[in-house]
Amino acid sequence: MPEFTGECAKPQRRSIGARRNPATEAAILDAACDLLREKGVHGLTMEAVARRARAGKATLYKWWPNRGALLVAVYERSKGTHQHKDMGNLVDTIAEFYRYVFAFWKTSEGQVFRLIIAEAQSDQDVAEALERYRLERLAALSEAVGWAQARGELREGVEPDALADTIMAAAWLRLLTDRLTTDPHRLARDVVSGWIVEKQ
Amino acid sequence: MPEFTGECAKPQRRSIGARRNPATEAAILDAACDLLREKGVHGLTMEAVARRARAGKATLYKWWPNRGALLVAVYERSKGTHQHKDMGNLVDTIAEFYRYVFAFWKTSEGQVFRLIIAEAQSDQDVAEALERYRLERLAALSEAVGWAQARGELREGVEPDALADTIMAAAWLRLLTDRLTTDPHRLARDVVSGWIVEKQ
Repeated sequence: MPEFTGECAKPQRRSIGARRNPATEAAILDAACDLLREKGVHGLTMEAVARRARAGKATLYKWWPNRGALLVAVYERSKGTHQHKDMGNLVDTIAEFYRYVFAFWKTSEGQVFRLIIAEAQSDQDVAEALERYRLERLAALSEAVGWAQARGELREGVEPDALADTIMAAAWLRLLTDRLTTDPHRLARDVVSGWIVEKQ
Repeated sequence: MPEFTGECAKPQRRSIGARRNPATEAAILDAACDLLREKGVHGLTMEAVARRARAGKATLYKWWPNRGALLVAVYERSKGTHQHKDMGNLVDTIAEFYRYVFAFWKTSEGQVFRLIIAEAQSDQDVAEALERYRLERLAALSEAVGWAQARGELREGVEPDALADTIMAAAWLRLLTDRLTTDPHRLARDVVSGWIVEKQ
């Protein structure tokens, strides 16, 4: 069961646009990450984060509308934006995605995603932040499925968005039911091979 | 977002075996259900349920090893055991399943399942009770997929267990991301039609 006990890794930051002060943003995300580790998901409040980061609450609210958004931002920073790799065929491309995400979810920083999903079930702000994140990741995954479609790999009528939704569902279920040791390639085959044109 | 505010429906009870006193069992489940409604998922403790049901804690622990098991029992009682219906083809059979389960999950009693999944992310007892329940429902769903296989509907090499796992993942994701208004038939088609032998 996840307790967030890990280091609060600071990977190379992506461009954050001109309006944010990078040092202040980093201090706030560090503070949020520390609070999460020390006090759990309910300890992460805007008030506590602002105090710890010695930042103004107005600044926090300007960059993240609520604690849900901040919670997801902490997760995104530690995960980094996954770039799907085209492995030349859909099963291998999705296997590579599962391999990457299962490995990350096994870390204590990755386990934060379970807590976000759990919290989203009773906190509307977290649910909205999670939904925005889900749609962003779904778009990236649909694009990867589209590569297979462009190659003529997919059966006629397959909708990349719908297939990506199912691919993601299978991943989330593995996380939520503690089955991250599932073989990524086997799972990819079990989830997507039906949608591939049968070889004659 | 789910707040459990519904009635604690008492559908016809299934056989519970000789060792349980049906009246006591009902009193305990009623008490658990009331506590859940009044105080939320954390208000459901073995202590509080025993007190409210005027039952011995030893009795509770004899029938349900922990609060996780009791929480799942409350959910199961209100849901009843879903019997899959063979609609003559896999898409319609799964559409019928999605239709049923989405309709139930929309009710306040059904929303308890979100809370169980959420609670399972940080409570090992709840996780174990949920896992037992998941495996039981997965077996029933695999059997339904097996009907299609026996009819020769499925592509060669499809494993009913693996396909049932994916069918269930798509359902859970809809619950957890507040998308229970998804069209059940469309979703069934999007999840299973790839696994069906293409008509010549």
